[in-house]
Amino acid sequence: MKIILDVMGGDNPPEAIVRGAIMAKESVSSRIVLVGNETMIREALAKHGADENDFDIVHSDGVITMEDGPMCIVQKKKDSSMAKALTLLAQGEGDACVSCGNTGALFTGATLIVRRIKGVRRAALATIMPYDNDVMLIDSGANVTVTADYLVHFAYLGSIYMRKVYGLEAPRVAIINNGEEKHKGTPLVLEARELMLGDEYINFVGSVEGQELPYAKCDIAVCDGFTGNVILKTSEGLSNYITDAAMAAIKAAGNASEEVLEAMEKIRRRFDSTEYGGAVMIGLTKPVVKAHGSSDSNAIKNALICAEKYAKSDVTSDIEKAFEVLDPLAQLANGGKNDSKK
Amino acid sequence: MKIILDVMGGDNPPEAIVRGAIMAKESVSSRIVLVGNETMIREALAKHGADENDFDIVHSDGVITMEDGPMCIVQKKKDSSMAKALTLLAQGEGDACVSCGNTGALFTGATLIVRRIKGVRRAALATIMPYDNDVMLIDSGANVTVTADYLVHFAYLGSIYMRKVYGLEAPRVAIINNGEEKHKGTPLVLEARELMLGDEYINFVGSVEGQELPYAKCDIAVCDGFTGNVILKTSEGLSNYITDAAMAAIKAAGNASEEVLEAMEKIRRRFDSTEYGGAVMIGLTKPVVKAHGSSDSNAIKNALICAEKYAKSDVTSDIEKAFEVLDPLAQLANGGKNDSKK
Repeated sequence: MKIILDVMGGDNPPEAIVRGAIMAKESVSSRIVLVGNETMIREALAKHGADENDFDIVHSDGVITMEDGPMCIVQKKKDSSMAKALTLLAQGEGDACVSCGNTGALFTGATLIVRRIKGVRRAALATIMPYDNDVMLIDSGANVTVTADYLVHFAYLGSIYMRKVYGLEAPRVAIINNGEEKHKGTPLVLEARELMLGDEYINFVGSVEGQELPYAKCDIAVCDGFTGNVILKTSEGLSNYITDAAMAAIKAAGNASEEVLEAMEKIRRRFDSTEYGGAVMIGLTKPVVKAHGSSDSNAIKNALICAEKYAKSDVTSDIEKAFEVLDPLAQLANGGKNDSKK
Repeated sequence: MKIILDVMGGDNPPEAIVRGAIMAKESVSSRIVLVGNETMIREALAKHGADENDFDIVHSDGVITMEDGPMCIVQKKKDSSMAKALTLLAQGEGDACVSCGNTGALFTGATLIVRRIKGVRRAALATIMPYDNDVMLIDSGANVTVTADYLVHFAYLGSIYMRKVYGLEAPRVAIINNGEEKHKGTPLVLEARELMLGDEYINFVGSVEGQELPYAKCDIAVCDGFTGNVILKTSEGLSNYITDAAMAAIKAAGNASEEVLEAMEKIRRRFDSTEYGGAVMIGLTKPVVKAHGSSDSNAIKNALICAEKYAKSDVTSDIEKAFEVLDPLAQLANGGKNDSKK
């Protein structure tokens, strides 16, 4: 297998990203294709004592920055490393693609270049949160405005992924809400909840509130991408803030043992977002993984491991087969009653 | 001054709530009016060795539960303790009201019984988060669906409150968003940001993302009540989860000193939502404070302290004066240009 890595995105390109690829060599069996400025890639490989022959290198000019709008990837920046990486994936030159660049551009590029699986209303960005169980937050930032039927599709996509990649038999789907009671929720949430309640293809367990997310109430938490982004970013910020404050307080106590400091450092790492495997884009014909924007080498390594797992699971074929049956347009015409699936 | 306390809401009424009132006696100079089942109140006071003469007691029948819809407070449950407490406040029998019951019912009751200040489009629920600075999250759960001009009013209300009650000269207002870049945001956020940018009465500092909230980027974070509820609940859940995990890990290390355990316990308390002073409802003619639903006695005590501070600051008069000038309808007609204020 081959994993295509855009090395020009994120906060410290390309060196930290190339270094992540070198680190990943021990953990992934796939060959890694480095896409970006060739000279800089060779310099970064040399600096870290890596053998150029262990990687494929594909040159590209131009970089998509965080300030670029999402459409730039198919317009004025269609020669950028991110566009090149996705084009290689679409052309079959690799089995998965990883980037830590601009999320909006990556999502737009993935949708327009790699393309959605037939029948999927919208691809989604999904992030696994490291709590009592692995909880998938879907959409975690790509689709800022959605309709109720998009949310239902996110539930389908998340269910298939968690079944295939995480081995859960009947993943429990919940919808993010501001309360459990029947009258709680925005009109969007109320409509989506109604659709999911009546859907035999979703193991729907009702509403979930933010404070319940760490406590194994569901395997998949569905929401719009704005809400998902807010949950994820708030969690990241607070995790760092609290673990830093705890570490500082323990050190200030003056007599913390080495074992205590080590235990606290482990807690800090457990909740550190750069330790996660990256967010996956689901609903596309090929696996695309978004690593964190402030990705260090370790985060890139984990994103590459995640991408290989995603590609090897062949969940994409499962989604293709499922959506042949789900036939979303007929379903919508039926008001979510799913008669068309029977 | 008198503070009216609904003792029948929350998870453990009325005993834990009456006990909170007893505990608050040392910290507040106001007389506390206990509203609820008279027999149960007298029993709770006796149980904790308190003198009945230190409190006013007002009997009411009926309790609003978490399952009741928001309108019940003016319909079939208009004799409940919460309705009674708000009615006493509206009639001038007290200077502030505290309840830990159903948020939706309390907010609806506050709006319909205590009433909004003239010119305020919507009252808001605001919560102070305990980070590098005190950050007000407004709306933190009451107005689930909003328009851009409601968000502008939340910014006005929050600014006046933080100026008067927290002594900030020019509180920095930010809008919760999924990115700092100009193109980021839902249509609602984009519209509200545009309005705030052109508003000379708001010290607007732009968008803020969840991970920036702990790091003193703003004094007031504006959002719709759905998003605010999600931020608050996610933060509460994660705070408990992480501090519990850290405490467990430190204890498991086996040789943690007393000083270390104490330091960690302090961190846990700092981020424990029941230690907060409760959420304030702003934009009403009188102060109403919502204590946490799972309030223990300590949370009730802190909510009573918060209510007294709110009432003593007389911020309500400031808001009345400000909104005479702001004249929101004229302002809206001007597309947010505020010409009517000059």
